[in-house]
Amino acid sequence: MHVDIAGALAERAAPGVDRSSLERLDDRVADAHERIEAGRADGEFGYAALNLPETTDIDAIRSATDRIKEATKHPIKTVLVAGIGGSALGAATLARAVETDADVETLDNVDPAATRELLDAAELNRAALVCVSRSGTTVETLANAQIVRGAFDDAGVDWTDRTLVVTGESGPLHRLADAEGLPALGVPEGVPGRFGALSPVGLAPVALAGGDVEAILAGGESGAASLSGSLFECPAYAYGALSYALAQRGATVSAMMPYAEALEPFGEWFAQLWAESLGKDGVGQVPQRALGATDQHSQLQCYRDGPESTMVTTVRPKHRPTLSVPSPDDDDLDHLRGSELGELLDLECAATTASLTAAERPVLRVEIDAVDARGIGELCYEFEAACVLAGELFGVNAFDQPAVEWGKDATRAQLRGEQTDETRTIDERDARWID
Amino acid sequence: MHVDIAGALAERAAPGVDRSSLERLDDRVADAHERIEAGRADGEFGYAALNLPETTDIDAIRSATDRIKEATKHPIKTVLVAGIGGSALGAATLARAVETDADVETLDNVDPAATRELLDAAELNRAALVCVSRSGTTVETLANAQIVRGAFDDAGVDWTDRTLVVTGESGPLHRLADAEGLPALGVPEGVPGRFGALSPVGLAPVALAGGDVEAILAGGESGAASLSGSLFECPAYAYGALSYALAQRGATVSAMMPYAEALEPFGEWFAQLWAESLGKDGVGQVPQRALGATDQHSQLQCYRDGPESTMVTTVRPKHRPTLSVPSPDDDDLDHLRGSELGELLDLECAATTASLTAAERPVLRVEIDAVDARGIGELCYEFEAACVLAGELFGVNAFDQPAVEWGKDATRAQLRGEQTDETRTIDERDARWID
Repeated sequence: MHVDIAGALAERAAPGVDRSSLERLDDRVADAHERIEAGRADGEFGYAALNLPETTDIDAIRSATDRIKEATKHPIKTVLVAGIGGSALGAATLARAVETDADVETLDNVDPAATRELLDAAELNRAALVCVSRSGTTVETLANAQIVRGAFDDAGVDWTDRTLVVTGESGPLHRLADAEGLPALGVPEGVPGRFGALSPVGLAPVALAGGDVEAILAGGESGAASLSGSLFECPAYAYGALSYALAQRGATVSAMMPYAEALEPFGEWFAQLWAESLGKDGVGQVPQRALGATDQHSQLQCYRDGPESTMVTTVRPKHRPTLSVPSPDDDDLDHLRGSELGELLDLECAATTASLTAAERPVLRVEIDAVDARGIGELCYEFEAACVLAGELFGVNAFDQPAVEWGKDATRAQLRGEQTDETRTIDERDARWID
Repeated sequence: MHVDIAGALAERAAPGVDRSSLERLDDRVADAHERIEAGRADGEFGYAALNLPETTDIDAIRSATDRIKEATKHPIKTVLVAGIGGSALGAATLARAVETDADVETLDNVDPAATRELLDAAELNRAALVCVSRSGTTVETLANAQIVRGAFDDAGVDWTDRTLVVTGESGPLHRLADAEGLPALGVPEGVPGRFGALSPVGLAPVALAGGDVEAILAGGESGAASLSGSLFECPAYAYGALSYALAQRGATVSAMMPYAEALEPFGEWFAQLWAESLGKDGVGQVPQRALGATDQHSQLQCYRDGPESTMVTTVRPKHRPTLSVPSPDDDDLDHLRGSELGELLDLECAATTASLTAAERPVLRVEIDAVDARGIGELCYEFEAACVLAGELFGVNAFDQPAVEWGKDATRAQLRGEQTDETRTIDERDARWID
């Protein structure tokens, strides 16, 4: 990827980063890069994520998914992914950006209306299920997996032919795979869930759907090759360092605004990466998901003229498919004559970034060659590296998420009917309802 | 709707509002309510939006959509909406929450890949098009309308049988409707686009898809009946006033987290309403879209432990469809035995709000009876009223969006090949690419 940092400099934006401050920051980037490289070399927890493209066993993924393709009589049209958070967003991000033969649908919530709708719409004898949970106990994932299994049974199709498990080396999902002889893939050691897009967690559903996972990994490798000890030579570190510097100067919101619908799940993936990795000890940035050009008619007013807390990132692919706009009859619409839809989107992107700079709001521009398998692999890798670097600069552990445990414990205890500190807090909660 | 404000009080949260400050704020709410009622009575620009449920001509909507249903030979399976911002989000929000016979798909971007995919998937001889633009010149909307018209032609179906126009009293779309004899509905005077959900802008696509628009309007009327001059007696004003007070105390981000997938577009609708109405003069709140329970595994870490700038709103329907989780074989999953998916979602919602309060972060809980036609009509009305009230308290004009004009002018000038201040800014933009 390429990153334009001009719109984040103090001479253009407030908050903005002075050029001399950037030079000083680059010394810290060099140190952080050394720390990251040492962590990668030792396979340390978290840092090991940045080794993924090379440590991913593509043959194991192909072999597991081929087993399912051979066992099911009909070609697969729908790949259902039971997973939540990092166990869903990587697969969704890759699948939306890559050409596939089958749809990939994530069951990453426990909404009865939505789950029922999804199962009613799927042709279950042409569907497969991928269950993803490192512990094999994630309550949302296991509940959905049970429901899909029940739906396969009701439809008279053998769920054991079409279920793939991605899990750790023990736990209920691992036992289930053993007992039923299901193909199973491991979750890589040392890699937090949200950094697992380039592992079986993200790749297995895409492979099952017929996507070019080799090209995704090649993109990741190209991202890995781009890392270097200076933000002026490394787009990933430039992104991470400028985000950190802008946050320190007041940009505590980071709006991610790709100009491509196929990157909408990427925005959600980014939001998890940024929120869980950096949002701790009161620091970090609140990620805000947007979409160009749609959100020019929704969020742009606030980015340009609302609280001075938001930096905006646009992501633009240089190449898009063609789609010509048929010429209108009305003279008032003459400017549409002979236009291409993709050119229009590019013009809007240019207008948005210039409009933010004209209002002195910070903006980073990201460009990639195209939204395809290679492009998304590279983009995910480089944003992971950007995030790890930002974690070093913020001085936080980018690889844990301690603040979500309270709610997980509370849900589990409520389900089990146990009395704990958490359930007592819920029971004793006071309310002041306005009716 | 019902709003629980306990989690936003200073004794529970930081930022939080002291009880005595709330009493003082209520005097301002009373004044603002008088201002709003006067504006409604005079049909003043913007305030007129809150008269919508009663001023909406439901017979005109039914008559226009019935004409299309009679003209098309096959029942309509897909309603395509060409519109952007307020001309798309209202319809999308209502359609997702209401039972319909046909799918409502919005063309609210100009992405060639996504538009082509949507048209390839639609059965065009069972599709209809609703074009929505007050001026009739919105470039994204007109480009998409031209493309859909071309696709109808290519598929050999008569586009004039199946195209409905919602527009102002002049302009290219109005002329097109006149020339081709298309059914046309007006955009209500005095109502900014984002406040138009309960007008033909939001209702016509839903009516064409077979949704119960009368029940939506009944919900809106119930919302209108709930307005009163004290935040302690009016849920809409309680929401608006507490949002304002929290923003003044540092909560410049408002995360909207409905616990129902069918309210996901509502979150986008809210984001536009909040961003464009309140995000001006450096004040307001940056809206952040989330979804429960999914984002517990993504955003919650940052809400609980990231920058102290975020208030969270949960929206929970009291009634949900049933979907039982088949009992798992594994003893480690015994807590799932006999569980209902909807109950699990409710437990997670309770855990999230309690977990935020345990971390002293501000949270507002909203409850509605159900996600259905009446429920969504009421919800939209009351959030509009909340927004108008917040505008009064912030002291901004909630009904304009001046900061988006720069980009619109720039796009139009670029398309026309004109040299303007805006295009010169774009052309002369400096860049500092990191490659």
